Amino acid sequence: MTLLVVGSVALDSIFTPFGETADALGGSAVFFSVAASLLHPVRVVGVVGNDYPTHELDRLAARGIDWSGVERADGESFRWKGKYSYDLQSRETLETRLGVFANFDPKLPAEWRDAKFVFLGNIDPILQSRVLDQMARPSLIVCDTMNYWIQSKKADLLALLARVDILLVNDSEARELSGDWNIHRAGKWILARGPKKVVIKQGEYGALLIEPERTFYVPAYPLEEVFDPTGAGDAFAGGFMGYLARADSIAPGALRRAMIYGATMGSFAVQGFGVRGFDRVDTGSVERRVKTFADLTNVEIAEPLP
Amino acid sequence: MTLLVVGSVALDSIFTPFGETADALGGSAVFFSVAASLLHPVRVVGVVGNDYPTHELDRLAARGIDWSGVERADGESFRWKGKYSYDLQSRETLETRLGVFANFDPKLPAEWRDAKFVFLGNIDPILQSRVLDQMARPSLIVCDTMNYWIQSKKADLLALLARVDILLVNDSEARELSGDWNIHRAGKWILARGPKKVVIKQGEYGALLIEPERTFYVPAYPLEEVFDPTGAGDAFAGGFMGYLARADSIAPGALRRAMIYGATMGSFAVQGFGVRGFDRVDTGSVERRVKTFADLTNVEIAEPLP
Repeated sequence: MTLLVVGSVALDSIFTPFGETADALGGSAVFFSVAASLLHPVRVVGVVGNDYPTHELDRLAARGIDWSGVERADGESFRWKGKYSYDLQSRETLETRLGVFANFDPKLPAEWRDAKFVFLGNIDPILQSRVLDQMARPSLIVCDTMNYWIQSKKADLLALLARVDILLVNDSEARELSGDWNIHRAGKWILARGPKKVVIKQGEYGALLIEPERTFYVPAYPLEEVFDPTGAGDAFAGGFMGYLARADSIAPGALRRAMIYGATMGSFAVQGFGVRGFDRVDTGSVERRVKTFADLTNVEIAEPLP
Repeated sequence: MTLLVVGSVALDSIFTPFGETADALGGSAVFFSVAASLLHPVRVVGVVGNDYPTHELDRLAARGIDWSGVERADGESFRWKGKYSYDLQSRETLETRLGVFANFDPKLPAEWRDAKFVFLGNIDPILQSRVLDQMARPSLIVCDTMNYWIQSKKADLLALLARVDILLVNDSEARELSGDWNIHRAGKWILARGPKKVVIKQGEYGALLIEPERTFYVPAYPLEEVFDPTGAGDAFAGGFMGYLARADSIAPGALRRAMIYGATMGSFAVQGFGVRGFDRVDTGSVERRVKTFADLTNVEIAEPLP
């Protein structure tokens, strides 16, 4: 089953209390792919400038990531510079240089247009819609967004929502989009706009899968050391979609398992700078962590009461 | 199995975005008892002034709460006045009048000294220790505390910790006590001070049971309407201890189930002002909510990977 992601391919400069890194591989499509490729091959659509260290992407290609949909344009690559607070709970953007990303107009290779599983990473909702315009109807369309688009292009975002199956956002985005601080009401508000399900990521508190009549909760992996939260949400999306593509299913049980794989990938992402958290991760380490997740919430309810 | 709680019996005046209430039944021992008594009889040790509407406590006695250890002293009852923010995420204390609580010196009726399950509600750690001094060794001692005692009586609190089995606190308290913002490291820090387990409540994000080699996570019940968070933590403690007393067990499986009963009681508490959230709650409604909790995290991990 083809798994496709459209998103940013960037260079991140990150300051955390534990160190710093400059021009490291980053961007939603990169984090997504590195995580997803542990479970299923991925095809990437994006753009880089002629200064991008593409050999680094090639190194990651060994994992089953097809970068041939990443266009190389004249100019500078997308760069983001950010600094985290001492407890990693908040971050400040120090600099954003869009470079070639400012004129990004995603073009899908003809043979990729029938992809079955599609993730629309956080880019302009108009571009996210244009990706769908180029496709046969996929089995599953999942999209992300951010506060910037909620504020500046809400109408376009709402038009897009009517076309997607699952919106995958963090809690502050869900609150801002719906105008409701209660996360469960915010989820219902989103469901009324088109998506059949909403995944709401809550950082160190885990993530929710909200459906019209049912909610699923996956906690975050209990980590005593967190180095860099950058990309955790995209890695979550990669684990979520990678699992579904591998299982070739969007049945209720598969979606719940996909949430566990998403949380697992998010937990690897924060254990190193950029994509380094994945350096020594293989299918075996993924499976071990998934089992720990199962134990984290494992409880048998005695019935009736003693 | 005797279940005993020592704590405050207060009158709360609360302002939330949804309304206000004046001189409503409150205090840690009251919230604890109302929740616990849905599962097991409770004996309460505390103090009230001669202005306390004890007939209201008597009304709650029907639930199996023995208030005979609540001393009536000359003077005013303990009063707390607080105001919540629009999203209920923070609150401001407008007034605290200790009244007779300032001279509270808990005295256990002789026939209560062999209680098997004891909850030391949030009072001065010196008084919490004095309660233990009056007791035969209970099977399970659980205690709560708050930032005020962490700041003003840390040495006394640490001396108490060496004598308790489980510390049950909220996340900001765990962070302040340990001086560590990472909640899992904070939990380990506490475990090194004596308690065999730590329960950390995280409000709308649920609660953690941290043991030396294992962590359990219970989410919060997905509520679209929350009226008043006051007492949710004490109601959690009541559900937790009430279940253990009823099961007469502190085995690992019972502790995990107790976390679910705790979260269930916390969710009822926030659905009304003061203890009103419990007005129409019976064993049947508790059991239905417990089942929903089980479904909230229910997932089968396919093994091996598809």
